[in-house]
Amino acid sequence: MSHEQSVKKIVLAYSGGLDTSIILRWLQNNYKCEIVTFTANIGQGKDIEMAREKAKFMGAKEVYVENLCEEFVRDFVFPMLRANTLYEGTYMLGTPIARPLIAKRQIEIAEETGADAVAHGATSKGNDQLRFELSYYALKPDIKIIAPWREWNLKSRTSLMDYAKKHHITVPMDKCGATPFSVDANMLHVSSEGKVLEYPEVQAAEYIWSNSISPEEAPDEPTVLDIDFENGDPVSIDGERLSPAGILLKLNELGSMNGIGRLDLVENRFVGLKNRGLYETPGGTILHIAHRAIESITLDREMGHLKDELMPRYAKLIYNGFWFAPEREMLQSAIDFSQYAVSGTVTMKLYKGNALVVSRKSVNSLFSADWVTFEDSSLNDYNDKDATGFIKLNALRLRLKKILQA
Amino acid sequence: MSHEQSVKKIVLAYSGGLDTSIILRWLQNNYKCEIVTFTANIGQGKDIEMAREKAKFMGAKEVYVENLCEEFVRDFVFPMLRANTLYEGTYMLGTPIARPLIAKRQIEIAEETGADAVAHGATSKGNDQLRFELSYYALKPDIKIIAPWREWNLKSRTSLMDYAKKHHITVPMDKCGATPFSVDANMLHVSSEGKVLEYPEVQAAEYIWSNSISPEEAPDEPTVLDIDFENGDPVSIDGERLSPAGILLKLNELGSMNGIGRLDLVENRFVGLKNRGLYETPGGTILHIAHRAIESITLDREMGHLKDELMPRYAKLIYNGFWFAPEREMLQSAIDFSQYAVSGTVTMKLYKGNALVVSRKSVNSLFSADWVTFEDSSLNDYNDKDATGFIKLNALRLRLKKILQA
Amino acid sequence: MSHEQSVKKIVLAYSGGLDTSIILRWLQNNYKCEIVTFTANIGQGKDIEMAREKAKFMGAKEVYVENLCEEFVRDFVFPMLRANTLYEGTYMLGTPIARPLIAKRQIEIAEETGADAVAHGATSKGNDQLRFELSYYALKPDIKIIAPWREWNLKSRTSLMDYAKKHHITVPMDKCGATPFSVDANMLHVSSEGKVLEYPEVQAAEYIWSNSISPEEAPDEPTVLDIDFENGDPVSIDGERLSPAGILLKLNELGSMNGIGRLDLVENRFVGLKNRGLYETPGGTILHIAHRAIESITLDREMGHLKDELMPRYAKLIYNGFWFAPEREMLQSAIDFSQYAVSGTVTMKLYKGNALVVSRKSVNSLFSADWVTFEDSSLNDYNDKDATGFIKLNALRLRLKKILQA
Amino acid sequence: MSHEQSVKKIVLAYSGGLDTSIILRWLQNNYKCEIVTFTANIGQGKDIEMAREKAKFMGAKEVYVENLCEEFVRDFVFPMLRANTLYEGTYMLGTPIARPLIAKRQIEIAEETGADAVAHGATSKGNDQLRFELSYYALKPDIKIIAPWREWNLKSRTSLMDYAKKHHITVPMDKCGATPFSVDANMLHVSSEGKVLEYPEVQAAEYIWSNSISPEEAPDEPTVLDIDFENGDPVSIDGERLSPAGILLKLNELGSMNGIGRLDLVENRFVGLKNRGLYETPGGTILHIAHRAIESITLDREMGHLKDELMPRYAKLIYNGFWFAPEREMLQSAIDFSQYAVSGTVTMKLYKGNALVVSRKSVNSLFSADWVTFEDSSLNDYNDKDATGFIKLNALRLRLKKILQA
Repeated sequence: MSHEQSVKKIVLAYSGGLDTSIILRWLQNNYKCEIVTFTANIGQGKDIEMAREKAKFMGAKEVYVENLCEEFVRDFVFPMLRANTLYEGTYMLGTPIARPLIAKRQIEIAEETGADAVAHGATSKGNDQLRFELSYYALKPDIKIIAPWREWNLKSRTSLMDYAKKHHITVPMDKCGATPFSVDANMLHVSSEGKVLEYPEVQAAEYIWSNSISPEEAPDEPTVLDIDFENGDPVSIDGERLSPAGILLKLNELGSMNGIGRLDLVENRFVGLKNRGLYETPGGTILHIAHRAIESITLDREMGHLKDELMPRYAKLIYNGFWFAPEREMLQSAIDFSQYAVSGTVTMKLYKGNALVVSRKSVNSLFSADWVTFEDSSLNDYNDKDATGFIKLNALRLRLKKILQA
Repeated sequence: MSHEQSVKKIVLAYSGGLDTSIILRWLQNNYKCEIVTFTANIGQGKDIEMAREKAKFMGAKEVYVENLCEEFVRDFVFPMLRANTLYEGTYMLGTPIARPLIAKRQIEIAEETGADAVAHGATSKGNDQLRFELSYYALKPDIKIIAPWREWNLKSRTSLMDYAKKHHITVPMDKCGATPFSVDANMLHVSSEGKVLEYPEVQAAEYIWSNSISPEEAPDEPTVLDIDFENGDPVSIDGERLSPAGILLKLNELGSMNGIGRLDLVENRFVGLKNRGLYETPGGTILHIAHRAIESITLDREMGHLKDELMPRYAKLIYNGFWFAPEREMLQSAIDFSQYAVSGTVTMKLYKGNALVVSRKSVNSLFSADWVTFEDSSLNDYNDKDATGFIKLNALRLRLKKILQA
Repeated sequence: MSHEQSVKKIVLAYSGGLDTSIILRWLQNNYKCEIVTFTANIGQGKDIEMAREKAKFMGAKEVYVENLCEEFVRDFVFPMLRANTLYEGTYMLGTPIARPLIAKRQIEIAEETGADAVAHGATSKGNDQLRFELSYYALKPDIKIIAPWREWNLKSRTSLMDYAKKHHITVPMDKCGATPFSVDANMLHVSSEGKVLEYPEVQAAEYIWSNSISPEEAPDEPTVLDIDFENGDPVSIDGERLSPAGILLKLNELGSMNGIGRLDLVENRFVGLKNRGLYETPGGTILHIAHRAIESITLDREMGHLKDELMPRYAKLIYNGFWFAPEREMLQSAIDFSQYAVSGTVTMKLYKGNALVVSRKSVNSLFSADWVTFEDSSLNDYNDKDATGFIKLNALRLRLKKILQA
Repeated sequence: MSHEQSVKKIVLAYSGGLDTSIILRWLQNNYKCEIVTFTANIGQGKDIEMAREKAKFMGAKEVYVENLCEEFVRDFVFPMLRANTLYEGTYMLGTPIARPLIAKRQIEIAEETGADAVAHGATSKGNDQLRFELSYYALKPDIKIIAPWREWNLKSRTSLMDYAKKHHITVPMDKCGATPFSVDANMLHVSSEGKVLEYPEVQAAEYIWSNSISPEEAPDEPTVLDIDFENGDPVSIDGERLSPAGILLKLNELGSMNGIGRLDLVENRFVGLKNRGLYETPGGTILHIAHRAIESITLDREMGHLKDELMPRYAKLIYNGFWFAPEREMLQSAIDFSQYAVSGTVTMKLYKGNALVVSRKSVNSLFSADWVTFEDSSLNDYNDKDATGFIKLNALRLRLKKILQA
């Protein structure tokens, strides 16, 4: 991969920010070809339309700006939540789950516009490059990929700023100096990492948390809410049916107001380095806890345990960028199979960082109290002696082992 | 298993409470043999010595009362915490981890006193009978086991009370009526379940939580503390070296004061029923979170991921009563192997139900900032082109699949 | 479960042999109710029609005799083969895979005939009782189950013979004495176990192998054949399209003639005992090897590895009797997902106990020679430097660990 | 990695063959530094001493020739066999298990001789480069690695021959043309792959199999032998105690004579390509089957099942080159833990490609016949009613599911 590769037209994942603007210009200068920009609204909360103007102004031949919020939540976030997904026990994968969607749409635009290359702004030591590029390759194996951060020699902040100045790219006043850390935002989460945060022994300053009120500052009164699930996905809040993005939007609002979903962790990157990240996932955290609660009364024990054992592997696939790999789809088919009866209502209490299950109910409930109600029927034949037999046969191999191998 | 089985001497796991007192008398009446009582102090916080007096008064031939707190934490709780153990994603296994210790000591006492049988007070639809009896059988395969709740016909509270009255067993005033739920307590947790709690759709009343202040009532000021780990186990708090039980005691105090570790869940029993439980695990919850944090900077990625994938199975073994099974020991050997470098300090903030990691540090830290410091050495040869190769070979099978099976 | 339970009508899984004939009479005598017999032809190779006559003669009210061979192979054997299923590394599960089908049809007949109970002839220390009864319960939870071998007191061969004589049941001459071992047969395998075989240190006599020629006696000339697969299932032999049962029949013939598929092993039963079994699975063994071969060129690596890791658990579920459990179906959905491109032709050579893959081809082949043919296209950009990057990033965590934790 | 990197002294893994002789010369010419050659005898069956002479003649400064056969079998092959290791269900990993040993000794020699670099002759699309280099890096993270096949431009056979001629390297007559496939050999196996074999649809010619007689040519009389195991490892053959290498040598002789252990497969490489390989592993195949047989009577069921589920992952680690990674060692600790009672004798029959278990016995046998012998003791309390209870509680969740979610 060198810039000498001959390229006809490039679709750039363009945020409208300084870095991808520099990339846009750099691509124009180095590849001497048409650039199509693509800006996805996945809930990052910035003025997306500004990206359109900026791209046009800088000479992009075709400019795509699209709202993918519903697709993002429906086809990426919710399927992932069905698996109770946590990477390394804690991380809800807000960034990794968004990249495949952007990559997929970028490839589609390449096909629509006859582009033969795609480009992105991810750096060379991170995981995002993997999430973009593995998706590109899986969907269109002959695509040419340009990763400027691995190609150019603008390695320092200063050289970047010089390049911007030299090529007439507007640098916002607050970007003249280096930002103290980098941020990624979408409907599921806001992440902060890098630079000042690269010291796991140093507490993160409060100002870094941009997407949620701190538990300390959260209201003294709890918020109580009902979430309805159907076949493993949330469908309404307090009885109001909402679209997938509507659900997440509402829960983000309630969660962030109550200090829910902050996480400060050190995680393992696919490239072999450890990374310290600060994640704010207010709505996702509520949904994760609520989903486990509705599963707790509706999901068969062994399906649940199988899900628990497969989950770390499923999470790792998403984290590493293998959303469009066949083994992720294979796991998804098992996970989705398990969700047919995962319907019902969970009542949650949100209070100063806590998202607590207060109650759960379902017409599909497998809870044993229902069994007790069959007390007089032939069904309820739980017999005390049955337990003796169950224990004795479970113990048999242990006893034999002790006798015969002592 | 019927009371006609001939028994010479029985070691009874005796709490000193009403139920096991009735069992003590019932064993005397039905088995017409000597009874040895064994009461273990594992931090349940009751007057253990009272059990001694009561057992003697009721005619037990030999009376064992022992403090097993240190052994409990050192040999059971800490090994389990090394695995980041959570049953069904959330439950810290406070009850299941205590039963094997009691069973083990009971079997030792049977051997010391020449008893040929053991008895316990666990009921016939729960998991505790499995945890006791699988342990008994694994350790002494020819032991006779008496489980009165599966044998007698004292099925209702009334018949129990009648039996007590008829056989001159003192019934505490507050036990005349049925308790509204049952409680199990030890150093790791207090659990509440049964009766009024058997309705997962009904919120648990505040009074049921006996071991912790609610988040709402917890102090407005956070508590910040340091926990030092060595080879996967906590060894000191705020610089003060403490015994295993000392560590847990201190953290229980700080945790319960700050509303940490409450859990209201529905779990799956081994016998096939679902169960609603309320668990309070203040110190254990803090240790769980802190242990993950110290692992996050000291544990190799792939060892960590392997641990995560094995954990649900390990948790299930403990939950189901297989602590003394060889497959639990086999998993433990892998888990313990992984902990040799898991040493260092985690700073936590406790605040109204939140146990938050503030910072972590270790001389064994694998965090990449250390890598960066090798900037000028031959070691730091992370090359941007390396990432290209890494991505391309990871993508190769995906590209081939798309090309050849499209 | 005692014979005092009141029962209206019983569907008995009836083989027509001596044991189930005694059971038929015993049920009539003890339950004083109507008996429906059900005899399934699943390729056991006996005169099934004789069972019909015998059942009528003995007074069965309704007599079902059905050929289930196609359903057996299509819906049970082939789905299992898709997973490359081997229990404990070697056993192809010929007996366990047949029981759920018989149980399913028995339950359907119970519903058709208004029966409230089912009965089977499996003994009390084996696994077959689990396979029958877990299937019964999963499909019809209120069914009454009668397992005569766990109920009656005909514990010795002599008492059985006495009972037969006393109740006018014809005992074939060769059954007067005890058979030296017991046999189960169906389209997938013939198993022999028990009695003389219960000494794992004693070599099995040649006469015990009833379903195959020994390698020594097999022809000196190899048999070569082609097997075509579509979506993971075999569909034709040497170009001739056959039904599922037709495929297995043909391969059984070729396999047994060439001494293929004998297995002498000790396996672990669910009830906690070890069991020595002799299995002959000629056609199944050929299909197992051929299926792996067609997967070897058509299945994505990571789907294949996931299948390999899930397989032992899937095999255990079938062995233990959980075919109709939701977790088996959940695994099946993942396994079946993986098979969409597993189509093509495998050429095998059969020779004196060896079933060898000679060649395999597929229009879906992922084999890299195809990659090489892209030599001149932009697709084939495998770059030697890519390997360097791939290796270096895979090594990074290992290097850091050695440097930082040495 | 370019030849401009400054290098002081290189330890080359040197076979003595043409390719590594060319590499030796190329390193001298391009790196202008001292070369140390290292030739390991791991049973490849060539004249190792010739390599010494050749290296000296070509001007190597230091020449190491060492017999590592015992270490290879004891510390690499046997630990792997304890896990019943098969990659992708069939491959015994003869090549991958040898590379880490060579790499380890190479690194030790680098330290002994003050070398700062190592070099090997593995090509750029294979897995061996990973096995060498991941081992180098894991053991000595600051080592410089030279992989000539990824550096030079001698891409065709012709250019290699030209280079040899130009630099006065003797080319054996039979190497003037390209060999039709490439071979790797050690005590565990001989592999053949590449070139004419790169067509999975073409049957391999008989002459390619160099390490074993074909089943057809094998003797008409079977060979019967006893193998004794202690703690999971074989220790004697027919009662004669042998060293690890002695065991494997003897079994290779018996196995290859009887046509045992041939395998023709397509496997998945770590780099993303599929590979067709022909493997001959006569002794290893016998040991694999015998080890499973001794485990079948001595290993606890659940330890065995856990091993079976972990095995594919363990095999993949070895295949991919992660022998010295901590997660491989972590798995090994669990595997080794399980072997403490895996001792006893297996009798095998070898006949024309078949390696059949004839009998197995052990003082640690857990086989249930031993249980039967306790018939009169209190131990043998297997009760027919126990099975009823065992079944009913295993069925409970299935019944509840059917009732409540139908």
